[in-house]
Amino acid sequence: MSKVAVIMGSISDMPVMQDAIDILKQFSIEVEVDIVSAHRTPEKLFDFSKNAHNRGISVIIAGAGGAAHLPGMVASMSPLPVIGVPVKSSNSIDGWDSVLSILQMPGGVPVATVALNGAKNAGILAAQIIGSADRNVLDSIISYKEGLKEAVYKSSENLNK
Amino acid sequence: MSKVAVIMGSISDMPVMQDAIDILKQFSIEVEVDIVSAHRTPEKLFDFSKNAHNRGISVIIAGAGGAAHLPGMVASMSPLPVIGVPVKSSNSIDGWDSVLSILQMPGGVPVATVALNGAKNAGILAAQIIGSADRNVLDSIISYKEGLKEAVYKSSENLNK
Amino acid sequence: MSKVAVIMGSISDMPVMQDAIDILKQFSIEVEVDIVSAHRTPEKLFDFSKNAHNRGISVIIAGAGGAAHLPGMVASMSPLPVIGVPVKSSNSIDGWDSVLSILQMPGGVPVATVALNGAKNAGILAAQIIGSADRNVLDSIISYKEGLKEAVYKSSENLNK
Amino acid sequence: MSKVAVIMGSISDMPVMQDAIDILKQFSIEVEVDIVSAHRTPEKLFDFSKNAHNRGISVIIAGAGGAAHLPGMVASMSPLPVIGVPVKSSNSIDGWDSVLSILQMPGGVPVATVALNGAKNAGILAAQIIGSADRNVLDSIISYKEGLKEAVYKSSENLNK
Amino acid sequence: MSKVAVIMGSISDMPVMQDAIDILKQFSIEVEVDIVSAHRTPEKLFDFSKNAHNRGISVIIAGAGGAAHLPGMVASMSPLPVIGVPVKSSNSIDGWDSVLSILQMPGGVPVATVALNGAKNAGILAAQIIGSADRNVLDSIISYKEGLKEAVYKSSENLNK
Amino acid sequence: MSKVAVIMGSISDMPVMQDAIDILKQFSIEVEVDIVSAHRTPEKLFDFSKNAHNRGISVIIAGAGGAAHLPGMVASMSPLPVIGVPVKSSNSIDGWDSVLSILQMPGGVPVATVALNGAKNAGILAAQIIGSADRNVLDSIISYKEGLKEAVYKSSENLNK
Amino acid sequence: MSKVAVIMGSISDMPVMQDAIDILKQFSIEVEVDIVSAHRTPEKLFDFSKNAHNRGISVIIAGAGGAAHLPGMVASMSPLPVIGVPVKSSNSIDGWDSVLSILQMPGGVPVATVALNGAKNAGILAAQIIGSADRNVLDSIISYKEGLKEAVYKSSENLNK
Amino acid sequence: MSKVAVIMGSISDMPVMQDAIDILKQFSIEVEVDIVSAHRTPEKLFDFSKNAHNRGISVIIAGAGGAAHLPGMVASMSPLPVIGVPVKSSNSIDGWDSVLSILQMPGGVPVATVALNGAKNAGILAAQIIGSADRNVLDSIISYKEGLKEAVYKSSENLNK
Repeated sequence: MSKVAVIMGSISDMPVMQDAIDILKQFSIEVEVDIVSAHRTPEKLFDFSKNAHNRGISVIIAGAGGAAHLPGMVASMSPLPVIGVPVKSSNSIDGWDSVLSILQMPGGVPVATVALNGAKNAGILAAQIIGSADRNVLDSIISYKEGLKEAVYKSSENLNK
Repeated sequence: MSKVAVIMGSISDMPVMQDAIDILKQFSIEVEVDIVSAHRTPEKLFDFSKNAHNRGISVIIAGAGGAAHLPGMVASMSPLPVIGVPVKSSNSIDGWDSVLSILQMPGGVPVATVALNGAKNAGILAAQIIGSADRNVLDSIISYKEGLKEAVYKSSENLNK
Repeated sequence: MSKVAVIMGSISDMPVMQDAIDILKQFSIEVEVDIVSAHRTPEKLFDFSKNAHNRGISVIIAGAGGAAHLPGMVASMSPLPVIGVPVKSSNSIDGWDSVLSILQMPGGVPVATVALNGAKNAGILAAQIIGSADRNVLDSIISYKEGLKEAVYKSSENLNK
Repeated sequence: MSKVAVIMGSISDMPVMQDAIDILKQFSIEVEVDIVSAHRTPEKLFDFSKNAHNRGISVIIAGAGGAAHLPGMVASMSPLPVIGVPVKSSNSIDGWDSVLSILQMPGGVPVATVALNGAKNAGILAAQIIGSADRNVLDSIISYKEGLKEAVYKSSENLNK
Repeated sequence: MSKVAVIMGSISDMPVMQDAIDILKQFSIEVEVDIVSAHRTPEKLFDFSKNAHNRGISVIIAGAGGAAHLPGMVASMSPLPVIGVPVKSSNSIDGWDSVLSILQMPGGVPVATVALNGAKNAGILAAQIIGSADRNVLDSIISYKEGLKEAVYKSSENLNK
Repeated sequence: MSKVAVIMGSISDMPVMQDAIDILKQFSIEVEVDIVSAHRTPEKLFDFSKNAHNRGISVIIAGAGGAAHLPGMVASMSPLPVIGVPVKSSNSIDGWDSVLSILQMPGGVPVATVALNGAKNAGILAAQIIGSADRNVLDSIISYKEGLKEAVYKSSENLNK
Repeated sequence: MSKVAVIMGSISDMPVMQDAIDILKQFSIEVEVDIVSAHRTPEKLFDFSKNAHNRGISVIIAGAGGAAHLPGMVASMSPLPVIGVPVKSSNSIDGWDSVLSILQMPGGVPVATVALNGAKNAGILAAQIIGSADRNVLDSIISYKEGLKEAVYKSSENLNK
Repeated sequence: MSKVAVIMGSISDMPVMQDAIDILKQFSIEVEVDIVSAHRTPEKLFDFSKNAHNRGISVIIAGAGGAAHLPGMVASMSPLPVIGVPVKSSNSIDGWDSVLSILQMPGGVPVATVALNGAKNAGILAAQIIGSADRNVLDSIISYKEGLKEAVYKSSENLNK
């Protein structure tokens, strides 16, 4: 079965990245979590990126803040789809550095970027990627969207009571 | 076999979006192209988004500029992974509006955003998504990355001659 | 009599949007309030937008944050004037995403955008729109402006005591 | 019958503002055009703003660039709805000054802001405002939107030929 | 003797603008303080601006936030030097709107803009303007600068103890 | 009689700064022009700044681009009012660096900042500063403003012919 | 032996700049600390900058906020490498002014700029500069990087327990 | 003797990076030039970064545009001082992405960042770094600064002829 790797540049990114882990578990997708720092553990970055697709991983989610090079560097070495989560870390200039250094990848090496601190959406996107070839997961996505809709209808009803 | 839909808000986005089509063809992936405007053809937007996953489409690439609502609205109605291409259209404020209105989706409805005018990367990302469950396509991605590398080595050699 | 619809993408926008409701009531204009999410309830968005002008509504005020597609999508389907309120929601990048994704609509589909979190001004603008064809409401606007002036004069007097 | 005033801070704004005039004529709405500079003709600004609603004008469209004070100053003195068009003039910092000095009006004095250089949308919005109380104009807006839709369908057909 | 008028758009700007009043008093320059709102009291704005130079005022300091039109509108009607203080008010987008709508005045109508919330510097600049034709005030400025220098030397000494 | 010094960081700023010289000559104010580079001729910067007020100069206009330190450094050493002109030089990031490094001076050391490339307004502001203590120059300013007004009226007449 | 000077524009920058001092001490590099204000003590700025390279100093670290001229002005007068630390001071516009007025130096006068509030990195960079000609310090840098790596591995182990 | 390596992510960065090579040659410093792409040749990036300090290189200059990861990734693996040149490449958003993804490095891994397209300053900074331990190079820097000064004096003389 498909597995998603959730990695981050620092343990301080965990409060944001936990949302990706939680939603993937909600979709019953297997998750592997690790700290891989592009700037402090470049060898681990290489090992991880070069081998992930041979270890049963289908999608990689990478979160980082500031001059966030982790998602792009993983994408440079792995053939798998890489989802980047810009983290608004304490040393970030309002998140702009995190967003731009993940989003603006050169031609040839894409990173699927989600919103600032959008780890939940990274998890859903990983599920959608798996779902694009796995009807069961696709159906879970469809159900999930139904749930979102119902929550709004309920909230609308409460408002108009 | 997997198919990718490439849609755009206006025919004026075609020069940018053509890069996605070209690279997908290079990967021998079937492509369907259409104009779907969130603001001018909302019914077509609905029909397209609701049914794409039942018509053999695996991934949707949507490009738009300015207040670019097309990728997000498709993502709100389709369970498939949606890749958004922010287009630096003539009415855009240096591309910031295109980028932010595609990237900053609320929790629950992700869009996989690529760089400003990054249609080529959207195509590669679509191939990677298909490749995550299709070993042949994955191998094409691996070869493609080898090609990128060789081009740099050649360019380095030329420089140092 | 004219009626104004105040809709928002999420109940979490209510603290901001309440200002629009309050000022409209102060002008004795009938208000209808609802949650309509572009991304989570697209069918409701369609129903609402297609029919508002046939249900006695004259002006629509729509508030949303982040990649804020609600005002623009309502404007794509309703012939009525749509006022957009960019909300500085928790997931917003300092409000820039909310502002740009509401303001920068393409030619053909305007949204009358007010300041970030400017729901009060959205309410006044709705009253002015009604007042442009209804002398009683116009007179209320004129009185309201007199009141603003008097408050400044009083504040000036207090200062110089 | 309703009349729209289109004013601008300088004759150099005319190439942008002409779009508002053209679309209003297309909707058969009477238009009055003038140069009113907040900074160079403040007395004219006062006369214009204080009296427009007594001269049969229903909506005011005001375009200006840089530190664009015209729309806001007209709004401070007229009870009519004022639509502001941020013009990307030669002395503007990429249009940001024009946008922010029109959009960010304080509570009490709204300006209905459209996109940078969005004079066409200002004209459509003025028509929608008139249409909110005039069924004939509303029907013209509905037809106009149908026309937009058809143009996209035609463009889509051409693409897929 | 020369007098400086310190005006502001709202009493809520007082905590910022007080710095201008305090430093001017420190330079023994007469100060007149008032609330003049461009958007809520346009007539007062006219009266004030047209007559200030005939009432013994030499320099005008005007503070405002958001779409800050007060300094520019005073400058459009008064021949005196006008110093603008961009105030980071609660409705401002990080102060950018205040700064740009004061700074980016069109050719012909300058506003001497100081830093965001820089009311103290506005007061010093007003003193420098008076000092440019009044040797006593110029000498006070020279002394003031000596004081700044000494404070740094003392702080340096403390550091190295 | 009062004299204005117009200095700039590089001869490449001359096309922008010429506007200040021209308008000052139009007001019959004596002008002294020089190249003073904060970064390349710091000794000249010191000499100029320390002595300007003893050489009959009343106001200093300083233009610079990029990390523009000239206006602020002159202001740190001269008791005279210093007007800063942010120049959009070729190495500037859209002018933002020029604007912010001139405008955002710390408390104690103001620079009277004008719009990006706003050298003409710097000249007018210098005239207004002189005019605040010289009735003849003040009257010239009043006449100049009348001329601005008449030009707009003429342009309005031409438009409505 | 090599010595590093750490200077700052104001004692209020000390909490940020302390990180540079601490890390340099960790590398056993001699540090000299002082307050040198470009705007308040220009003579001290001159003395310091002209003589530092003759007093055994190898590298200068200069921190400042807002319109931060200290690093650039030191660089204009010293032949030594100058490292600039943009400080997010209370009067800064989100740090953009500090960053741009340090980074965007004109051709001929470089400042080695580090991240906003990045004083720790300024210290490490100073050590690397010394290490580029001093094998002992280079070895300390290599060890330091090993330490960073080990900390990540430990944090990864803890995560996966 | 000391050697400087000038590397860049793509041959398209050469027109910008040539300035670094030219100025280093002017200082008679040995230069090695190569293309090393972080995203396309990660293995070469590793080899280069791990070994540069053992091959007689003292300083590394790395230029890149967009999501510019090259300087930071070299800095993560080399103990040498790394100078980053943000290149305003064709796919960049006005250079902001290049600047922020090079400048905003996390604590522990500094990059000495110079201005956008500031390759000339990168070369001078490299010379200053070498000069901090090599009196001959230091003297060249001092002479170079004298040359800058004389050029300004000559330009000032021409102006006042």
